[in-house]
Amino acid sequence: MKQSGPISYRDAGVDRDVAERAKNSIRRLVESTKIPGVLSEVGSFGGLFRMPPGFEQAVLVASADGVGTKLKVAMRAGVHDTVGHDLVNHCVNDILVEGAEPLFFLDYVGMGVLEAGVVEALVAGVAAGCRENGCALLGGETAEMPDFYEPGEYDLAGFIVGAVDEKRRTGMHRVRAGDTLIGLEANGFHTNGYSLVRRVVFDRMGLDVGDRYPGMDNSVADVLLRVHRSYLGPVRPLLRAGLVSALAHITGGGIPGNLDRSIPEGLEAAVERKAWTIPPEFAAIESAGVERDEMYHTFNMGVGMILIVPEESTDAVLHGLAGASQTAWVLGRVRPSTASHRVVFV
Amino acid sequence: MKQSGPISYRDAGVDRDVAERAKNSIRRLVESTKIPGVLSEVGSFGGLFRMPPGFEQAVLVASADGVGTKLKVAMRAGVHDTVGHDLVNHCVNDILVEGAEPLFFLDYVGMGVLEAGVVEALVAGVAAGCRENGCALLGGETAEMPDFYEPGEYDLAGFIVGAVDEKRRTGMHRVRAGDTLIGLEANGFHTNGYSLVRRVVFDRMGLDVGDRYPGMDNSVADVLLRVHRSYLGPVRPLLRAGLVSALAHITGGGIPGNLDRSIPEGLEAAVERKAWTIPPEFAAIESAGVERDEMYHTFNMGVGMILIVPEESTDAVLHGLAGASQTAWVLGRVRPSTASHRVVFV
Repeated sequence: MKQSGPISYRDAGVDRDVAERAKNSIRRLVESTKIPGVLSEVGSFGGLFRMPPGFEQAVLVASADGVGTKLKVAMRAGVHDTVGHDLVNHCVNDILVEGAEPLFFLDYVGMGVLEAGVVEALVAGVAAGCRENGCALLGGETAEMPDFYEPGEYDLAGFIVGAVDEKRRTGMHRVRAGDTLIGLEANGFHTNGYSLVRRVVFDRMGLDVGDRYPGMDNSVADVLLRVHRSYLGPVRPLLRAGLVSALAHITGGGIPGNLDRSIPEGLEAAVERKAWTIPPEFAAIESAGVERDEMYHTFNMGVGMILIVPEESTDAVLHGLAGASQTAWVLGRVRPSTASHRVVFV
Repeated sequence: MKQSGPISYRDAGVDRDVAERAKNSIRRLVESTKIPGVLSEVGSFGGLFRMPPGFEQAVLVASADGVGTKLKVAMRAGVHDTVGHDLVNHCVNDILVEGAEPLFFLDYVGMGVLEAGVVEALVAGVAAGCRENGCALLGGETAEMPDFYEPGEYDLAGFIVGAVDEKRRTGMHRVRAGDTLIGLEANGFHTNGYSLVRRVVFDRMGLDVGDRYPGMDNSVADVLLRVHRSYLGPVRPLLRAGLVSALAHITGGGIPGNLDRSIPEGLEAAVERKAWTIPPEFAAIESAGVERDEMYHTFNMGVGMILIVPEESTDAVLHGLAGASQTAWVLGRVRPSTASHRVVFV
């Protein structure tokens, strides 16, 4: 900075013209996600969404999340238009666990120096996720934070709001002994365990984003940046038909750290490890020296969502999932237990 | 990292035990914000909020925001329990502009290495803001991001949802020529212009957080960390009484960059600079070499919120504000204009 003479906001690291350009490209992306209910334009102080009709007693379901260190892979690969999609799908899955369908989404981008192209790519990913899940991108904030983030680096967080009729809420209050555990196939690491993945793949294996991923035909970037799957499509009809008692989105903490959040006291989920095959991307990480127990407590291991279903609905649910081309496995059952844990591998 | 032997998630920079401790203190803070409508416990996949009754047609109003580089002042002062309060109040003011009262809030904290004490202080500030404004802290995400943030550094973003009955929405659609502009006193910089403030105060003036702020009896830390004022208290009764046509929250971009968002085509807001006195914290920045025009386009200059009020409601509004101990000034009027600008200083 100059030591004398007038100081402007631009000298202090904030360029309002670049901000204006970014805002214009964001405007077009936001328009692409517009659905009935959106009342506001880009640039209003708050995003406005008309509460949809038809609820006996609407319950709003909200969730906040970040992308985590998967962002570092995106930066390393120079691919910025997938992580926003990850974020939306992650949030959609989180509220789906409560039985809710998404209404709208807002994003937060923190950056050191505003790079209009990167911001546009990030928001393009968010908008793609919103379109996939039929929710509106209702607002967001792009913060230029000189001295916070290195050039080319950023953080990305998001926030979703959905709704469910109170009597249709899913959750542990509906889970009974004898219920079936149905695992839905993941398409990779989704958005979890990336600090460990990066250490193993980049540091220990010495690979870079353009190299072939061990045991697979795809590049490291392809495998590590694959977009977190949204389960809204295959699961929504099952929820609407009242076939599902509870769900668990398998994120950080793996099956033991997430399925336990949907099992009430006095019961446990008995999961058969042999019910599904661990995909090669996880096997490669384990082979590089991560212990099996650590693997199961960190990664989804190929199971991205677990449905807890009354025994008599099992066939209908499996049939519905097959019809939606969602690979699924019966992982086990819910059974009585006096133990303090809620999940046991058998 | 070790070059051989098993790798764990802790080696990769993520400590789940510290995360667990932080989660427990957050749980207590969240409980302190509980209001009717909250159906979920901490740790559920999504936060659940029962839609309140009594709306003819509810419109949800949502906003996302960050604290910006005011965080750097907090870090420099080692004071982490005010910026969360800033964030909530900022968001509350943003949705207040649409006529909405807050329902719930969610926060996002990104950190390099999880420091349980800092996380607790950050969330304590958020919870204090939620209690002040009567909204629930419904959820949040604390992301441990090794390699993203320096030790001791973090980013903090937040998301708010409120509601307004559609027919009670405020906004430019209700603004008419002859309406009165009423400015509400700010209590300092609020949450804007901190990149410039820091350059001037720390670099050019050479002050540190413990020094006396020029022209004031308070320390630099006291002045720069004063919590962004929430206008919900004084403004809510005026909105409920239907006395306000539109509002503008004066944030980044100052009066010209925010008041214009509430003035429709064909009108302009004529603001008399002499209607209020610029507070000393701003005068000190200007004296250090920031041009006056840059000042007005960056800072609130002592006016944190502007109400646009029908002429016949002016007295009632001023009376209500005085009764709520909110200092306010008549700044000017809305008048017809064919110019492209929407705000003019007179």
